[in-house]
Amino acid sequence: MKKFVNDPANFVAEMLEGVALANPEMLRYVPEYNLIYRADRPNPDKVSVVQGSGSGHEPAHIMAVGPGMLDAAAPGNVFSAPPVDYCYECIKRLASPKGVLVLINNYQGDRMNWDMAIEMAQAEGINVKSFIIDDDVAVQDSTHTVGRRGVAGNFFVIKACGAAAERGASLDELLRIAQKVNSQVRTMGVALTSCTPPAKGKPIFEIGDDEIEVGVGIHGEPGRRRDKLKPADAIVDELFDAVFNDLPFKSGDRVAVMINGLGGTPISELYVLYRRAAQRCKEKGLTIVRNYVGEYCTSLEMAGASLTLLRLDSELEDLLAAPAEVAVRIF
Amino acid sequence: MKKFVNDPANFVAEMLEGVALANPEMLRYVPEYNLIYRADRPNPDKVSVVQGSGSGHEPAHIMAVGPGMLDAAAPGNVFSAPPVDYCYECIKRLASPKGVLVLINNYQGDRMNWDMAIEMAQAEGINVKSFIIDDDVAVQDSTHTVGRRGVAGNFFVIKACGAAAERGASLDELLRIAQKVNSQVRTMGVALTSCTPPAKGKPIFEIGDDEIEVGVGIHGEPGRRRDKLKPADAIVDELFDAVFNDLPFKSGDRVAVMINGLGGTPISELYVLYRRAAQRCKEKGLTIVRNYVGEYCTSLEMAGASLTLLRLDSELEDLLAAPAEVAVRIF
Repeated sequence: MKKFVNDPANFVAEMLEGVALANPEMLRYVPEYNLIYRADRPNPDKVSVVQGSGSGHEPAHIMAVGPGMLDAAAPGNVFSAPPVDYCYECIKRLASPKGVLVLINNYQGDRMNWDMAIEMAQAEGINVKSFIIDDDVAVQDSTHTVGRRGVAGNFFVIKACGAAAERGASLDELLRIAQKVNSQVRTMGVALTSCTPPAKGKPIFEIGDDEIEVGVGIHGEPGRRRDKLKPADAIVDELFDAVFNDLPFKSGDRVAVMINGLGGTPISELYVLYRRAAQRCKEKGLTIVRNYVGEYCTSLEMAGASLTLLRLDSELEDLLAAPAEVAVRIF
Repeated sequence: MKKFVNDPANFVAEMLEGVALANPEMLRYVPEYNLIYRADRPNPDKVSVVQGSGSGHEPAHIMAVGPGMLDAAAPGNVFSAPPVDYCYECIKRLASPKGVLVLINNYQGDRMNWDMAIEMAQAEGINVKSFIIDDDVAVQDSTHTVGRRGVAGNFFVIKACGAAAERGASLDELLRIAQKVNSQVRTMGVALTSCTPPAKGKPIFEIGDDEIEVGVGIHGEPGRRRDKLKPADAIVDELFDAVFNDLPFKSGDRVAVMINGLGGTPISELYVLYRRAAQRCKEKGLTIVRNYVGEYCTSLEMAGASLTLLRLDSELEDLLAAPAEVAVRIF
């Protein structure tokens, strides 16, 4: 294992401390609960939008906390759901009279722990509801999933709900928006390499030097099949067709396109992928209104990428264009 | 070689096409010269700020084109200086009555080609000057360098000059600002792995599973020494001390801190490094005014990072805080 790490048991805590130190004004950090939240939250005039799942997917989701995005994030260990008491503490500290919306990617551990925490919070009179994201078209059920997995499409649910919450939308309104985004977004990924959780010290799966995993999950879950490495355009074509045909998208659709790096793939390669995705969109009659090329939902240092298409309408275009700020600075 | 690539000979062209397709309104792309430039340039009321060096360091420098940053970039092949005619074409197309500033990282190939292009342009009456960046403290001379190498500190020269140019600063004023930034910025990097240029197909250097290269260059140039992998904090300490003592920085300094990923290192690990860097700044009496954690100047998919410190004064703080936009979208 070749990583920048001290004691692997402290990896997540030290990362969170780094994020907090880098954003002393915007964020508060509660080490006992891995909780990262906006310093100016809860705001009684808006719904709090929160998320918590395993670490190792950064910038998702701790670095998606900020104005117009998440109000708080409570991650677990690498690839592990946050414990119930982390989830509960997150809801409790972010409780607002307008409510709390918990966005959950569809993994059994996350669902179970958040559901228990939500029940506990509701029993205390806190107004909290949850929404499940399941945008991965690769497989129907997966290693830790009944139904489809939630992957990079999560970003769009956060962005749309974060923007609407900032404008004062009600909890029910946010649930409607989350549902709309989730119903219109589709993703599939591919891995060129495996990755190594620091505390585990060895790769989560084995893959040959000439192999790729088509439809991989963000915790290394098996995809549709193991294939031989092939040209970038052929890989994009397979991801694109799977995603396009699933909704299905259709000529005339206005879309957002995301090429998401899985952690170890340089941005230069992501733009090679975007080039082909843009060609395919044009060929299919899709108008790309917004594009996102970079790292949004990763699997530690895994080399690989995912392709996401989101069908837009005027409401979603407006929400995606709304101002936002996160705990990852470019400038 | 496990990469998203079609024909390796087209890697740079396809990446540039992807960048252009992703930014149809902001950017223009001239494939014959690898030229990426702002659609609204040249602007006769401002100096054009341009850069061109080898590809493989993305987002540097093609994805640093945008308002408040570079006006144009003309990259060469991976780790190769742009040919003279690319440099010349870049200057010529960006020529403004107020002048053109070429920011050059200190590598012999880049300097030679840009110098020839600048002479050609000057012979035609174009007002163009250049500035050499050499922020890497690791070694005095290097494989392709007389004097120190230019690495991630380049970002701060671009940011400061880009902001000042946007406000109408003269060419001489920009040279003064570039000189100030370069004189106050220091960087050192470390590699955990090598990297593979697509057209070469094999790693640019060999490194053992338990080894790191301390002070590595961004083209894999040897650093100060080969060491055994050690805890993240110990690695940061070595980089920090080398950088801190070089200027030297001193207690009471206000600084910008950058933890720059070299391409294959996930952002989670970069925040583990930032945590220690922030601790060291505090211990040394440095006030961190701005921090930058992410990828700014990479070496393809190399796992590794660099640490940069920039001493600030009120002028530089103001320029770093100025609005900017680049061809890499977060939202």
